[in-house]
Amino acid sequence: MLNSMNGIKKYHFDKNLKRLVFCWIPGTPCGRCEDCISYFLSRRDGTIQSMVGTSEVTHDLQLLKEVDMATETDFFPGIPKITYAPDAGAGDVLYFRHYNAEEVLLGKKMKDWLRFSVCYWHSFCGTGADPFGLQTLHRTWNEGNNLMECAKKRLHAAFEFFNKLGVDYYTFHDRDLSPEGSTLEETNRNLDEMTDLALQLQNNTGVKVLWVTCNLFSHSRYMNGAATNPDSHVLAYAGAQVKKGLDVAKKLGAENFVFWGGREGFNSIHNTDVGAELKHMAEFFRMAINYKEKIGLKCQFLIEPKPKEPCKHQYDYDAMSVIGFLKHFGLDGHFKLNIEPNHTTLAGHSYEHDIVMASVFGMLGSVDSNTGSPDLGWDTDQFPMDIRNTTMVMKTVIEQGGLQPGGLNFDAKVRRESTDLEDLFIAHIGAMDAFARGLRNAVRIREEGVITSMVKKRYMSFSHGIGQRVEDGSASLEELEDFVKKNGEPNVTSGKQEKYETVFNHYL
Amino acid sequence: MLNSMNGIKKYHFDKNLKRLVFCWIPGTPCGRCEDCISYFLSRRDGTIQSMVGTSEVTHDLQLLKEVDMATETDFFPGIPKITYAPDAGAGDVLYFRHYNAEEVLLGKKMKDWLRFSVCYWHSFCGTGADPFGLQTLHRTWNEGNNLMECAKKRLHAAFEFFNKLGVDYYTFHDRDLSPEGSTLEETNRNLDEMTDLALQLQNNTGVKVLWVTCNLFSHSRYMNGAATNPDSHVLAYAGAQVKKGLDVAKKLGAENFVFWGGREGFNSIHNTDVGAELKHMAEFFRMAINYKEKIGLKCQFLIEPKPKEPCKHQYDYDAMSVIGFLKHFGLDGHFKLNIEPNHTTLAGHSYEHDIVMASVFGMLGSVDSNTGSPDLGWDTDQFPMDIRNTTMVMKTVIEQGGLQPGGLNFDAKVRRESTDLEDLFIAHIGAMDAFARGLRNAVRIREEGVITSMVKKRYMSFSHGIGQRVEDGSASLEELEDFVKKNGEPNVTSGKQEKYETVFNHYL
Amino acid sequence: MLNSMNGIKKYHFDKNLKRLVFCWIPGTPCGRCEDCISYFLSRRDGTIQSMVGTSEVTHDLQLLKEVDMATETDFFPGIPKITYAPDAGAGDVLYFRHYNAEEVLLGKKMKDWLRFSVCYWHSFCGTGADPFGLQTLHRTWNEGNNLMECAKKRLHAAFEFFNKLGVDYYTFHDRDLSPEGSTLEETNRNLDEMTDLALQLQNNTGVKVLWVTCNLFSHSRYMNGAATNPDSHVLAYAGAQVKKGLDVAKKLGAENFVFWGGREGFNSIHNTDVGAELKHMAEFFRMAINYKEKIGLKCQFLIEPKPKEPCKHQYDYDAMSVIGFLKHFGLDGHFKLNIEPNHTTLAGHSYEHDIVMASVFGMLGSVDSNTGSPDLGWDTDQFPMDIRNTTMVMKTVIEQGGLQPGGLNFDAKVRRESTDLEDLFIAHIGAMDAFARGLRNAVRIREEGVITSMVKKRYMSFSHGIGQRVEDGSASLEELEDFVKKNGEPNVTSGKQEKYETVFNHYL
Amino acid sequence: MLNSMNGIKKYHFDKNLKRLVFCWIPGTPCGRCEDCISYFLSRRDGTIQSMVGTSEVTHDLQLLKEVDMATETDFFPGIPKITYAPDAGAGDVLYFRHYNAEEVLLGKKMKDWLRFSVCYWHSFCGTGADPFGLQTLHRTWNEGNNLMECAKKRLHAAFEFFNKLGVDYYTFHDRDLSPEGSTLEETNRNLDEMTDLALQLQNNTGVKVLWVTCNLFSHSRYMNGAATNPDSHVLAYAGAQVKKGLDVAKKLGAENFVFWGGREGFNSIHNTDVGAELKHMAEFFRMAINYKEKIGLKCQFLIEPKPKEPCKHQYDYDAMSVIGFLKHFGLDGHFKLNIEPNHTTLAGHSYEHDIVMASVFGMLGSVDSNTGSPDLGWDTDQFPMDIRNTTMVMKTVIEQGGLQPGGLNFDAKVRRESTDLEDLFIAHIGAMDAFARGLRNAVRIREEGVITSMVKKRYMSFSHGIGQRVEDGSASLEELEDFVKKNGEPNVTSGKQEKYETVFNHYL
Repeated sequence: MLNSMNGIKKYHFDKNLKRLVFCWIPGTPCGRCEDCISYFLSRRDGTIQSMVGTSEVTHDLQLLKEVDMATETDFFPGIPKITYAPDAGAGDVLYFRHYNAEEVLLGKKMKDWLRFSVCYWHSFCGTGADPFGLQTLHRTWNEGNNLMECAKKRLHAAFEFFNKLGVDYYTFHDRDLSPEGSTLEETNRNLDEMTDLALQLQNNTGVKVLWVTCNLFSHSRYMNGAATNPDSHVLAYAGAQVKKGLDVAKKLGAENFVFWGGREGFNSIHNTDVGAELKHMAEFFRMAINYKEKIGLKCQFLIEPKPKEPCKHQYDYDAMSVIGFLKHFGLDGHFKLNIEPNHTTLAGHSYEHDIVMASVFGMLGSVDSNTGSPDLGWDTDQFPMDIRNTTMVMKTVIEQGGLQPGGLNFDAKVRRESTDLEDLFIAHIGAMDAFARGLRNAVRIREEGVITSMVKKRYMSFSHGIGQRVEDGSASLEELEDFVKKNGEPNVTSGKQEKYETVFNHYL
Repeated sequence: MLNSMNGIKKYHFDKNLKRLVFCWIPGTPCGRCEDCISYFLSRRDGTIQSMVGTSEVTHDLQLLKEVDMATETDFFPGIPKITYAPDAGAGDVLYFRHYNAEEVLLGKKMKDWLRFSVCYWHSFCGTGADPFGLQTLHRTWNEGNNLMECAKKRLHAAFEFFNKLGVDYYTFHDRDLSPEGSTLEETNRNLDEMTDLALQLQNNTGVKVLWVTCNLFSHSRYMNGAATNPDSHVLAYAGAQVKKGLDVAKKLGAENFVFWGGREGFNSIHNTDVGAELKHMAEFFRMAINYKEKIGLKCQFLIEPKPKEPCKHQYDYDAMSVIGFLKHFGLDGHFKLNIEPNHTTLAGHSYEHDIVMASVFGMLGSVDSNTGSPDLGWDTDQFPMDIRNTTMVMKTVIEQGGLQPGGLNFDAKVRRESTDLEDLFIAHIGAMDAFARGLRNAVRIREEGVITSMVKKRYMSFSHGIGQRVEDGSASLEELEDFVKKNGEPNVTSGKQEKYETVFNHYL
Repeated sequence: MLNSMNGIKKYHFDKNLKRLVFCWIPGTPCGRCEDCISYFLSRRDGTIQSMVGTSEVTHDLQLLKEVDMATETDFFPGIPKITYAPDAGAGDVLYFRHYNAEEVLLGKKMKDWLRFSVCYWHSFCGTGADPFGLQTLHRTWNEGNNLMECAKKRLHAAFEFFNKLGVDYYTFHDRDLSPEGSTLEETNRNLDEMTDLALQLQNNTGVKVLWVTCNLFSHSRYMNGAATNPDSHVLAYAGAQVKKGLDVAKKLGAENFVFWGGREGFNSIHNTDVGAELKHMAEFFRMAINYKEKIGLKCQFLIEPKPKEPCKHQYDYDAMSVIGFLKHFGLDGHFKLNIEPNHTTLAGHSYEHDIVMASVFGMLGSVDSNTGSPDLGWDTDQFPMDIRNTTMVMKTVIEQGGLQPGGLNFDAKVRRESTDLEDLFIAHIGAMDAFARGLRNAVRIREEGVITSMVKKRYMSFSHGIGQRVEDGSASLEELEDFVKKNGEPNVTSGKQEKYETVFNHYL
Repeated sequence: MLNSMNGIKKYHFDKNLKRLVFCWIPGTPCGRCEDCISYFLSRRDGTIQSMVGTSEVTHDLQLLKEVDMATETDFFPGIPKITYAPDAGAGDVLYFRHYNAEEVLLGKKMKDWLRFSVCYWHSFCGTGADPFGLQTLHRTWNEGNNLMECAKKRLHAAFEFFNKLGVDYYTFHDRDLSPEGSTLEETNRNLDEMTDLALQLQNNTGVKVLWVTCNLFSHSRYMNGAATNPDSHVLAYAGAQVKKGLDVAKKLGAENFVFWGGREGFNSIHNTDVGAELKHMAEFFRMAINYKEKIGLKCQFLIEPKPKEPCKHQYDYDAMSVIGFLKHFGLDGHFKLNIEPNHTTLAGHSYEHDIVMASVFGMLGSVDSNTGSPDLGWDTDQFPMDIRNTTMVMKTVIEQGGLQPGGLNFDAKVRRESTDLEDLFIAHIGAMDAFARGLRNAVRIREEGVITSMVKKRYMSFSHGIGQRVEDGSASLEELEDFVKKNGEPNVTSGKQEKYETVFNHYL
């Protein structure tokens, strides 16, 4: 199969190794290769091995063979290991122009600030179906004779993708990885088989699990809620599923475990006992904490807020709602938040809002880095491409010293119209670059310190005198009144928003 | 003045003045005055007709004179005491068709379920100016030789209004009642003088203060925040103002004290230290609690959430945000919430959402009963007229046994185009009737019990077996898994939303 | 209580009460009542025919046989013909409490004002799947050995439903009725076979087609648009499909033909030539008009606006967008609008807005009567239950003299949690009653004339003098200036919004 | 130019001229100039105090004198003429880093692509009052003994600002420039006097009027509408005002004339006859067209859409609504649109949407360049600072060959907290730079042609065969069907949204 690459004029296919090797000249977007006798290859370690004339064919084959041994699969033929090429042209969308994994900024490698993770469901299970349309994305890895065969192909494809893209983490729901059987026992056996394979692939490649989560929303049994279902039988089912999910998290060394309550809420206030449901949700979390401790699972528990969709109202509405809930039930010590900005904007906030709020309350655990469109009222899970937004996020992340053990998970999906296989790469690359630009900007903001010192000066009055007494909790209303009687009317001080915006823009 | 209505027993039409002078007997809304030789009719075309006998003129004048002595004011000439007339026609908008204050429902008088309160700022200080237009409402009580003279006329007008409308409560900001002076001392002296008068009028009429609040947002000193101002001098000023406000609350016997943080938030995340500001806000509340306890003030502290406007983001975003904040800083025992549904809808929730949530968390203290338009993104403070909404609110209020010491405060303003003096009455009457209908509907829902029993049945499984063990906190994930292994897949149970909606509609 | 359903094992018709009493066995939604000697049937004319007791069995069987010939199916066992029972209790949700089809109001039968229509896709093709969950609704009529067998069962089920509910119209997309084949020719043959059956059922029952539409959005070929696809081959496919759709409309006597452009718009402005796409859409409509005229199809063409979803932006955004488009391309004489209020609210308008605007521009053709939730940003297609809204719609419909040849189509779906078969009936009944109440309210508003005369008086100044000259187009700015110089400042006149609202509430 | 500050190292206060001339060292925003013998102080009362050393006085005075001759006014002491300094640091906010007026791009000077205009109302009449707060901005030019004196000072201040900022255009409402008198005659006399002065200042400076508009919304007479007022007397008043406005436009050589219908709409559908109001609005426009032609006014008429605020619904909702209205009444040949993106986003569209749509329909006349916040539901009129947005706008502007005779008017206001005088400059500079960056980006996009050629290729099929026949209007449904029968199913082609986004990001 000479599987054709879009517009490329020369390529070489090694018939023995069944791998396609193509050449590309920077600056020629859909690559014309007329006067080139060589080709390049990228290996898992990120180095580019290339420039081979015809006389060096033997050497090439050797090279190709090595690469092949490392990957074993071939779901993305013609897509090389993605590399850093800061001078790539506008159309050169299969290179990182900004993300340079090993480059050190503010004492950390870019990859350690960013901790990118690929999500399994959108990128490997997604079909492109939407409420008004049927499947558009036909993936070879989802074709097979039975569900378990597909599941395995899918996992191989995913690891090929992780490697070529160069990310260290992935995330998944239990049901993404492994199909549901006709009984819980069968389902769990499927999961055992699939996690055996996942563990092996993890060990082979060094890719790790950022977080695991249980899908407690897709199956019809959960239509009225999982932990908040009016029927305790359903809650029991969800509990059994989470028990297994925690076992899986331990087995695969997941660094976090996420709860997303897509069906924990209501569609009609008329049929709902909100108080009872919240109580049940809290008890559910308590049982999960107990089991986690029992099995010695060390990962961080995360709750991911979302205001609505699929439910009309979800209890984990936004960061502050979850914080209120956790504190009310005394659970706040056991959880942090996994913030998804598309959910934040659906809650009526600005893109970075919940990231900032969670961080301020010491609760920012991880980020699902995606975006919506401000003019749309549902979760579009687009790849984040807005540099202003990524800069704001990374500024907050830097301020709190990083996200670890959390990361930046791409809970984003290619549009259903983006049917080319390469679109999956382009989307991730574009978004990783957007975050890399955000990181670079935030680092410059931090290093130059112009904004920081403007802010510091603004709050200066709290470091002495009456301000300090407020700060340390020793002031009283009487004392404040005395201060005013003595000092009269305060000065009016400009907030200087436009100056801040202009300075901020300087770094974009 | 002859055309004063308050407590008048008979009415007359003065042919020379072309004004109607009418008496009013409680309980005879549009009726004929039996022991009087004259009467009036209101015809469908809106003209007022009247007949005045001659033989008893002397007696009448005497009567009128007595009445006049009793009232002293005359800001709403021609508007009678509003009465209950269940059979009034569509155009008879100066009668209650549903609100019958003394009628007992579910063991309480309607007025005790509803605890209506008139807000001072919109109804007596409002000018009709909007961001695009100048004053449209010209009120006689706001015309005078100096601010204190106007303030007093305004207070008299307000009490005339309270009496004619028949509400027992009012609410105000310190600066509504009394103008700001050139120093804090002068401002406080103004407030002393005005509260002396208010106390006298309260005693004369029996009208009480539902709550007092301090205006910490209008003056330019608060433009960057009051308790969260980056300048501690401004925070001190706010503290001094709240100290006086608490003194006023005590003096006037206010049943609640409200904090609304219209400037506690930010317009630009760039210039804001959110963590510092939240800390300062918490310290501010602590000082208020201390002072309240020191002076022995017994009222309930309330925080009123609002998501945005005037700020881009306000910390008291919605019920759950405030609950999260209060619990984080250990302040939740000292506060309840004053929920304004127009704020709730601005936060992206349904009309009743925060009322329900606050109630579930035991934090519903009072309600600012108004409405916005779902298609508008700012606070319009319209009079609540939607029966579905008022029914939902009253259903929740009944379920928690009432709002006392809180109430239903009309934080609503007549449209700037509603320039007739009578519009102020019509608006309140229409809204009070909307809530009275809501109350009657909610009572019927409660008494018939159809919805209640449908809900109870829905959650039945938590009263025994595994459900009960979840409920009482004794279950574990292992136990839940065992249950599922024994009992298999749960049944699918219809949520029956459309049935609930249909049954609910039956009561509207 | 005999009329309670829950758990009763048998059903009976009580001749004295003239009410149907039916049994229902929990968990057997479509079950046959084996151990019962009685049965019931409902016929299209609304009478309930039943016999109970052993002595009348012979006669019964004869009756049943006749009925059986007429219907052939039994997809809604236990559900009677729905009847008008104005005194039904809160829980009696299988009766119309307000809709009395034959009752005459303002000179027309209720059924002729309301012209209810059931939509085929939601009610008979819907599975309950949502973007976060799998199928919840399992319908017997969608189970069979092949797609055509299912399609036929589905059509029989639908006609049973139409009859039992008592509506005269249905609406469908070509692909609802009949499955797509592997070629256009096969697809069209399927459609021929299915429309033969539909025509037979229509003739047997008297149920008619309110409108047909072509599904130009579900198939992956339309993912980038149908009439606005960047590839003319796809446009050609859409054209071929519409040609057949118009043939079907003629065959089945459809009174209208709807175009909904769910994929006519864009997801990214970057890849879109808006001008070209609009031009192509206009040309597409021109070809449809030509073909319609060629085959002598008499029905009304309708465009259904929707602002977004599935696309980020759809060209038929709202009523005024479509009017602007149609007038720009000279197409306005050939189209009216089919307004769906859930789409209107997604466009940021109030529920009734586009109905009013379309009517004012003489373009209101038909209504898709559903509702969303104001706090949600996507199309929920809920059954309309808000009496205020239905009153506003019917007020407009009455003002323009009715909707014919359009109607009120229920483009609404039961919630995915409403899994009981009876929920499909309850939802329609509740919504039909909501519209019947709206109609009754609007009729009373019209008949009493209070609001109408208030409005008329408000605009009175345009019936004489300078106002009349403006009205008839003969005035000039110079003349207006002269008028002002002579007459000075105009009076301020109250808009009296709260009075209007209070009067309106009187009728709800 | 001596009054340019760029690079000047010292500052001085001239006691005779009472003007401060200050040096400024990049990076020390509020600093003391160490190597200078003089310093300045700004005191709380707003006066400027200074001390000047003696040794350099002679030289200084000469310098100061020259500067003084150049400016004549003194409302912005210490602010120099703003210059282009591409290498300015982050804190150097009083320089253009991107806007270089005379630089030529794609054959036009930047200033001719951008045609910046300052709006008079926000920047010179604004007080900082908002619906919840009093005045915060105290401008010396708004202080005086009477309204006309203030008006003149204001105009001088504005021209000083225009000159220092370096913009060629300004825009105003009639009532910004000149106060309303007690009669129309007096009002018009005021306007005559003020426009005499404006004409003189225009001639002296070369600054021109981009557009004039009449304020038909602030005065209480317009509360129920101007052209759509239910009272024809008010419409007459509006007509008289517009007549004068057109005279003013002619006198001052305005290049455009804008109609913004802030009160043309409704707050309650109940009291509104929409059909009548739209008819009156159309007649009003007809009279304006007639008078414009009569006096030989050559400027472009523009309508500025806004969906809501102050009204609940405004007829000029968005671009398509206005286009629909204009075409319905046959007025479209006489108008173009003035698009304000903050209004566009309030209408639920993306920032650039109405600019693109208006351009596609040949109706984009001018742009009010501002921004809102996507999470806020009201018009915040912020200075546009988002580079992605300005790039999109300028891309469209370039595609249609420029905006002339329209321009980019800053209908934006400094935040009410931005109380420093310099904030007015910083805001404009930041926004002008944002647009200059947008222009530079758009030019690069255009010049490299990567996106353009991707789009062109996407629509290629319409340039031949069946596509071309659709394009030229010669195809029929029958022909399309034949094509499909011959050619079968179309190919699925990726929309490549993420690739477009990534390429677009490359240029930001």
